[in-house]
Amino acid sequence: MIKEIKIYKGDIIFCASPDKFTTLENGYIITENNKIKKTVCELPSEYSDCEILDFSGNLIIPGFVDIHLHAPQFENLGLGYDNELLPWLENYTFPEEAKFSDTEYAKIIYSKFIKALYTHGTTRSVVFSSLHLESTEILADLFLESGLGAYVGKVNMDRNSPEFLTENYEKSLEETEYFIKKYNSPDSLVKPIITPRFVPTCTPELMEGLSKLSEKYNIPVQSHLSENLSEIEWVKELHKEIGSYAKVYDHYKMFGDRPTIMAHCIHNTSDEIKLMQEKGVFVAHCPTSNFNLSSGIAPVRKFLDSSVKVGIGTDIAGGHTVSMPETIVAAIHASKMYNVYVDRSFHSLSISEAFFLATKGGGEFFGKVGSFEKDYEFDALIVNDTELNGNSRKNLQDRLEKYIYFGTKEDIKKVFVSGKEINRNRF
Amino acid sequence: MIKEIKIYKGDIIFCASPDKFTTLENGYIITENNKIKKTVCELPSEYSDCEILDFSGNLIIPGFVDIHLHAPQFENLGLGYDNELLPWLENYTFPEEAKFSDTEYAKIIYSKFIKALYTHGTTRSVVFSSLHLESTEILADLFLESGLGAYVGKVNMDRNSPEFLTENYEKSLEETEYFIKKYNSPDSLVKPIITPRFVPTCTPELMEGLSKLSEKYNIPVQSHLSENLSEIEWVKELHKEIGSYAKVYDHYKMFGDRPTIMAHCIHNTSDEIKLMQEKGVFVAHCPTSNFNLSSGIAPVRKFLDSSVKVGIGTDIAGGHTVSMPETIVAAIHASKMYNVYVDRSFHSLSISEAFFLATKGGGEFFGKVGSFEKDYEFDALIVNDTELNGNSRKNLQDRLEKYIYFGTKEDIKKVFVSGKEINRNRF
Repeated sequence: MIKEIKIYKGDIIFCASPDKFTTLENGYIITENNKIKKTVCELPSEYSDCEILDFSGNLIIPGFVDIHLHAPQFENLGLGYDNELLPWLENYTFPEEAKFSDTEYAKIIYSKFIKALYTHGTTRSVVFSSLHLESTEILADLFLESGLGAYVGKVNMDRNSPEFLTENYEKSLEETEYFIKKYNSPDSLVKPIITPRFVPTCTPELMEGLSKLSEKYNIPVQSHLSENLSEIEWVKELHKEIGSYAKVYDHYKMFGDRPTIMAHCIHNTSDEIKLMQEKGVFVAHCPTSNFNLSSGIAPVRKFLDSSVKVGIGTDIAGGHTVSMPETIVAAIHASKMYNVYVDRSFHSLSISEAFFLATKGGGEFFGKVGSFEKDYEFDALIVNDTELNGNSRKNLQDRLEKYIYFGTKEDIKKVFVSGKEINRNRF
Repeated sequence: MIKEIKIYKGDIIFCASPDKFTTLENGYIITENNKIKKTVCELPSEYSDCEILDFSGNLIIPGFVDIHLHAPQFENLGLGYDNELLPWLENYTFPEEAKFSDTEYAKIIYSKFIKALYTHGTTRSVVFSSLHLESTEILADLFLESGLGAYVGKVNMDRNSPEFLTENYEKSLEETEYFIKKYNSPDSLVKPIITPRFVPTCTPELMEGLSKLSEKYNIPVQSHLSENLSEIEWVKELHKEIGSYAKVYDHYKMFGDRPTIMAHCIHNTSDEIKLMQEKGVFVAHCPTSNFNLSSGIAPVRKFLDSSVKVGIGTDIAGGHTVSMPETIVAAIHASKMYNVYVDRSFHSLSISEAFFLATKGGGEFFGKVGSFEKDYEFDALIVNDTELNGNSRKNLQDRLEKYIYFGTKEDIKKVFVSGKEINRNRF
C-alpha cells in the first residue's frame, strides 16, 4: 500500500483533554494516508524531503463537530423564539418541515444548509432530516458531494404530530431500512443513524421496529431527552408503566445499546444520569437552543464529573446559529449562569473545556476525530487571525480565545475533512 | 433657512414603543434638514418632485445605540473570561488601559474601535476612554471625523487602582475641565460626559470635584453600579456612612441630577431602583459582559415595570463583541434564564422589547434618536437581507428577527447618522 505523507505547518492548537490546550507555535502535523502520525515542534529529518503545506502565521485547529441539528429547519433560523418548545414546534417547525415533501425545495435548502456548515467550519455533524425519504437521500447525497462527515437520520414519527407529518409505522420502518441499506458503508464519511423524533411522536410499535433495525444493521441512534418540563410530563402520561423518560428509550434498547446521542438532557434525574454513564450515551448539549426556547440549562459539569460523554449541538433552528464558536460561547455563558443561579458548587466551563466538547468531545462519536493526536483523522480549519489578533503579540491560547469569542466565518481560510480540502464554492 | 428634503424608500421597521414593531413595506421616510418629518406608506403628492434614495427590497432600521462600552479595551475583546470582575480588571483591563499613555497606540486602536462600531451598525455610543487626556482627545477627534454620535468620557480614578493608573485628583479635575471646555458644543455629535470609573476608585474629593464640573457645565454622568457582589461589599466598606452603592453617587449629586447612565445594575435594592426611577437614571444593561464575568442577570423586567429607563451596552471588553444584534440576543437569553431560574413572574423580553432597548431606549439619552417618528434624527442602517431571507417570503418582523439572530455586519450596506452617510472606508 502506498503511503501518502502530507505535512501541515502553522500555529497548532487543540485539546487532547478538557483541562488544557496543547499548543505548538510554528509546529507540524504529519499525516499518513490522511491520519495523523505525529504532531511536533520540529520536523524530523526523515521528512525533510516531503512537501509541506505551509500555513505559517495561521491557526490550525480541529474542525468543529456539531452533534445535534435539524437540516430542514435551516430556513427557520432566527424565527419564533418568543415561543417555548411545544408551541414553537407546532407553529414554526412542523409547517417548515412539511415542505420537504418537495424534493426540489429540499435540494435548494439542503445545499444552503451544507454550505453554511463548511463556511462556519463544521466538519462533522449528526443531523436530523425530516420524515421524507427522498429528501433525506438528497441530504445524504449532498453531504457525500461536499466531503463533510455526517450521520444523517430520516426522522420517524407516527403519532401526536400534525396529520401532514404523521407516518404509517410500517412504511416508516420500510423506508428507514431502505435508507440504512443504501448508505451503510463502513468507509463512507456519511452514514445513517436511527432517528425516532422523540418519545411523544413514536408509537411503541415504531420504537420496537426501529430498535430491531438498529440491532440488525448495527446502526447508532439519536433522539431528544428531557428538554422541557411540559414535554417530560407528556412522556410520563404516555408511558406511565415505565419509570422515566430515559428508561423509555432504554426499554426499547435505544439508549446506548448502540452508540447513542440524546439532545438537551436538561432535567434528568440522578438515576437517568447514572444510566447514561453506564451505557455510554452521549449528551448533545445545545445551549443556544435551550436559551432561545427558555428550556433551561443542562448540568454539564455534573455530566463531566459523572463521566457522561458530552458534545455540543447547535440544534438549529432551536438554536439560532450554525456557528460552533458562538455555541461554545453560549455553553460557557450557560454554565456561568448555572453556577450563579442554580448551584455554586458547579464550576463553570473554562474555554478549554468548552472547546474540547466542540471538537474531541463530540468527535468521539465519529471515532478518532476532533484532536491532533496520533491516529486521529485530519479534520482541520486554517484560521487567519491576523486582523483579529491586532497590534499586540498574543500567545496561542489568547489567539484562539479571541477567534472563538469575536472571530467570524470570514477568518476561516481552508477546511479539511479526513485529509481532503473542502471545496467551499461547491454549493 | 433652506429646507433640505431627503426621502428614503425601503422596507421600514422600528419600535416606537417596546411592545410592538411599526412596519412599512415599501414605505418612505421623509426628512427635512436631516430630521424626520413623516414616515409613510404612500408618498404625498407634494413630494413627487423630490429625489428619492431608493433602497427598495432592503430593510431600513434605526442605527443601534450602545450606551456603555470602554474604547481602550478594544484589543481585549474575547480575552480573560475565565476570571470574574476584580481579577479580570487587575490582570487584563488595567494593563491594557495603561498603554494609552502612548498617543500613537491610542490612534491605532481607537481608529480600529470606531471602524468596528460603524461596521457593526452602531451609530451612537456612550464611551469610557482611559484616564489619559491626550488619548481621550484623540478618541473624541476620531469620532468627530467618523461622523458617528458619541458621548466620550475621560476616566477619573485616584485610589484603589494600580499605581500606573492612579491620578492626582486635582490634575484629574483640571484635565476633565479642559476636556469638557474643548468639546462641549451643543450642536456637536460628539460631547463630553463626566466619568468617575466607579466608587471604589474615586476619593470623596474627586467625586465632589466631578459633581461640581457636572453642575457648572451641565454635563451628563456615567459610571458603574452593582455589577458584582464583591464590588458591592467593597463599596459598603469604603462608605459605611452612606446607606447604599446608589446613594454614594446620589450623595455627590451624580445620580440623575444631570442625565446619568449607570452600567450593569444587577444587584440593586428596591430602594435603589425607586431612586433610579425618581431621578430618571438610565440603566445600561450589559448582558454579554454579565455572562462573561459571571456577574449575573439584571432584572430588566423589574426596571421596565418600575418605569426605569433602560438601554443596552456591549461593555467591551467585559462584553466580547461590539455587535449590538448579538447583544440584543444575549439580553433576551438573559431574561429567559432569569424567568426560568430566578423569578417565573418576570416575563422574558420579547424581540420587540429588546430591539426597542437597543434603539429608542438608549437613544433617548441622545434626545430624539433611535426611532423613525416625527422630529427624530435620521440615524439608520440599510440592511440587505436577500441572502438571509432566502427562499420564502417573510413578513418584515420575521426578516428583522432573522437579521438580528443570524445576520452579520456584512449585511449592512449603508449607515446614516443624523442624515449623513458614514464613509465606512475612512479608517
